[in-house]
Amino acid sequence: MDPKDLAAEALRRCRVLARFSEEPGRLTRTFLSPPMREVQAALAGWMGELGMEVRVDGVGNLIGRYEGRSPGAQTFLLGSHVDTVRDAGKYDGVLGVMLGLALVQGLEGRRLPFALEVIAFSEEEGVRYRMPFLGSRAVTGTFDPELLQLKDAEGLSLAEAIRAFGLDPDWIPRAAYAQEALLGYLEFHIEQGPVLESLGLPLGIVEAIAGQTRLEVIFRGRAGHAGATPMPLRRDALAGAAEWMTLVEREARGEAGLVATVGTLQVSPGAVNVIPGEARLSLDVRHAYDEVRERLVAYMVTRAQQVAQRRGLELALHTRSEQPAVPCDEGLNDLLEEALQELELPVHRLVSGAGHDAMILAPFCPSTLLFLRSPQGLSHHPDEAVWPQDVEAAVRVGLRFLERLEARWGQGKPGPI
Amino acid sequence: MDPKDLAAEALRRCRVLARFSEEPGRLTRTFLSPPMREVQAALAGWMGELGMEVRVDGVGNLIGRYEGRSPGAQTFLLGSHVDTVRDAGKYDGVLGVMLGLALVQGLEGRRLPFALEVIAFSEEEGVRYRMPFLGSRAVTGTFDPELLQLKDAEGLSLAEAIRAFGLDPDWIPRAAYAQEALLGYLEFHIEQGPVLESLGLPLGIVEAIAGQTRLEVIFRGRAGHAGATPMPLRRDALAGAAEWMTLVEREARGEAGLVATVGTLQVSPGAVNVIPGEARLSLDVRHAYDEVRERLVAYMVTRAQQVAQRRGLELALHTRSEQPAVPCDEGLNDLLEEALQELELPVHRLVSGAGHDAMILAPFCPSTLLFLRSPQGLSHHPDEAVWPQDVEAAVRVGLRFLERLEARWGQGKPGPI
Repeated sequence: MDPKDLAAEALRRCRVLARFSEEPGRLTRTFLSPPMREVQAALAGWMGELGMEVRVDGVGNLIGRYEGRSPGAQTFLLGSHVDTVRDAGKYDGVLGVMLGLALVQGLEGRRLPFALEVIAFSEEEGVRYRMPFLGSRAVTGTFDPELLQLKDAEGLSLAEAIRAFGLDPDWIPRAAYAQEALLGYLEFHIEQGPVLESLGLPLGIVEAIAGQTRLEVIFRGRAGHAGATPMPLRRDALAGAAEWMTLVEREARGEAGLVATVGTLQVSPGAVNVIPGEARLSLDVRHAYDEVRERLVAYMVTRAQQVAQRRGLELALHTRSEQPAVPCDEGLNDLLEEALQELELPVHRLVSGAGHDAMILAPFCPSTLLFLRSPQGLSHHPDEAVWPQDVEAAVRVGLRFLERLEARWGQGKPGPI
Repeated sequence: MDPKDLAAEALRRCRVLARFSEEPGRLTRTFLSPPMREVQAALAGWMGELGMEVRVDGVGNLIGRYEGRSPGAQTFLLGSHVDTVRDAGKYDGVLGVMLGLALVQGLEGRRLPFALEVIAFSEEEGVRYRMPFLGSRAVTGTFDPELLQLKDAEGLSLAEAIRAFGLDPDWIPRAAYAQEALLGYLEFHIEQGPVLESLGLPLGIVEAIAGQTRLEVIFRGRAGHAGATPMPLRRDALAGAAEWMTLVEREARGEAGLVATVGTLQVSPGAVNVIPGEARLSLDVRHAYDEVRERLVAYMVTRAQQVAQRRGLELALHTRSEQPAVPCDEGLNDLLEEALQELELPVHRLVSGAGHDAMILAPFCPSTLLFLRSPQGLSHHPDEAVWPQDVEAAVRVGLRFLERLEARWGQGKPGPI
């Protein structure tokens, strides 16, 4: 079957699945919500047509197995997640699962020395239980049973949600792969950013998933009458925050690959004629190298202290989360690069600033991501898109990648490590 | 009676009136709310003891008249407002009325060639109908009848509120003074800012009430993934707003007497991991000279346009209000200065950044304000305070001021203009 047709079919299926939503008129599909059942039914049907054996694990991941030449062969895993954010686009996560199926279909019944499994993770976005990666935690054996007590907005526990879906939390430990049975994991995903587009490239090999620090920063000064308090006598919390934000931005721009974002800012009392007594903001800092990120965060904290001290403000700083960078598998990336080169496609390696299931899989088995260009960098938005020719390129690269993997296997190198 | 005792009694009465509140445990007394009736009863009692004739006008202002040597003499007006903001202090407005009574009491029955009236304006803060100065508009004949259709949070119109209080909106036109009958207006008020305290001064003569411009400023960029969008590819609305706020602050600091305040700022979408696509903020600029204010506002607008253009942001700017500066009466201020000098008190003139009833009276009759030092500059806050010795100084200055006014009258200068 022509890669162009496989790509078109993958995109058509993304549009089909986008109809399965919790909310009328827009796509929202959180963990184990009713439309997740419709997605699983569709997936199981498509997998069945390809001769795949379908199972659902205790956390709701749906897995289709395309057996290798001999039963019980080692497994190479393809996939991504099928939950979404609120008012989502059609491709984030879902496209990776559809491309997994496209590759199986592209084999046209030919069996490989290893099995292929296509996994549709039930949860990655962290919307319903404010805790992401529930699906990939289960298959890597890192699902903490304490999570079962988390409550959603309706007060339903995670355990109850699993039972209500017809599954059993007791099955979750069995969801974990035996580590020696897994050859590796490859995830196709839209980039969610503008880098590939700005470079005019269809695809990008992900070298690492950036580490991340999230801070909550509070400047406290003194509220006062906006008319009656001369400038030199003010302790304006927002003016301090503004000065600091400009320093943070300047510093981030000066460090290659670093991103720093103030995404939230609340001012109080928050009246037109009152000098702000408090400004509370978030800072999100990411970089591929933990040392760089830690150095820059420390510098930004020092700058906040200096700004606060000079202005007579109090400063409170809380680290809300801290995740180290996760490198992707070099062996798999070399195979992807060979595939791209053989197809005369441009090779570009980049760092993922967003977290992905591959980040959870990476410490467990050789894992990597192939990014597809995101038009306008749009993500988590109903207008999120992908170019058909880029999807076709991804299909070609994926099929060539499987050939390279098979060839290595023939050379007595069972794993790509 | 000793000015010290008069001051102590004025402060005691402020505390008495602070008990009359709409809300348990804190002081909130809006226009014609039930506790306003208790305030008026107390005021009428105190005025009666001083031999004053009490009336209430159509908008709820309570006025006590201490007749001059001959009936129907011209009137000099003292007073301020007795409504409050929510969770208010005890002195804003109320102290000016209590000091008016203290001056009448300080005359110990002696009659002047002119009458004194002490007015307790029913509305100055603009809380209940989001429209300030209802009281002073009525006595200056500038109360627009359209205002009667304004609705409060419960949907009760201003006209209905007036009737529910036992008054009649039809009386409002009669509330206006005949302009030729008024000699002038003097308002004692707490400063509401830290200037007098920072200079170590008890009192300040108000030269002018600053003009004011209020802008709404919206920077629009593009929301994006905080991890997946490199710094050079961002159009971060908040980063642009932050840069502009630092420029506004720098400019305001460089122009003597100018104040500029960003008091509100909303960010959207407002998520930790999303680059802000929009930042919406308010700017409040005040200065005693309209030309200076207008020049600085124009400069700040230009800077906003430059910041927006350089960063690829859209900019929307709306002027929400624009009030010219109001000069206070120089003749009255000269009398206040003479009084201060005779009492060997330091003379300091300053500009009021806040609006006051005197601002509405000033175009109608010679008007001015005498500010009392505000400890810590606190205002619109339950901890708002005033020093007893400053109140005593205000009583001495007020009595001496009335003597000077009487002396001028004797010189055949009926008005202080």
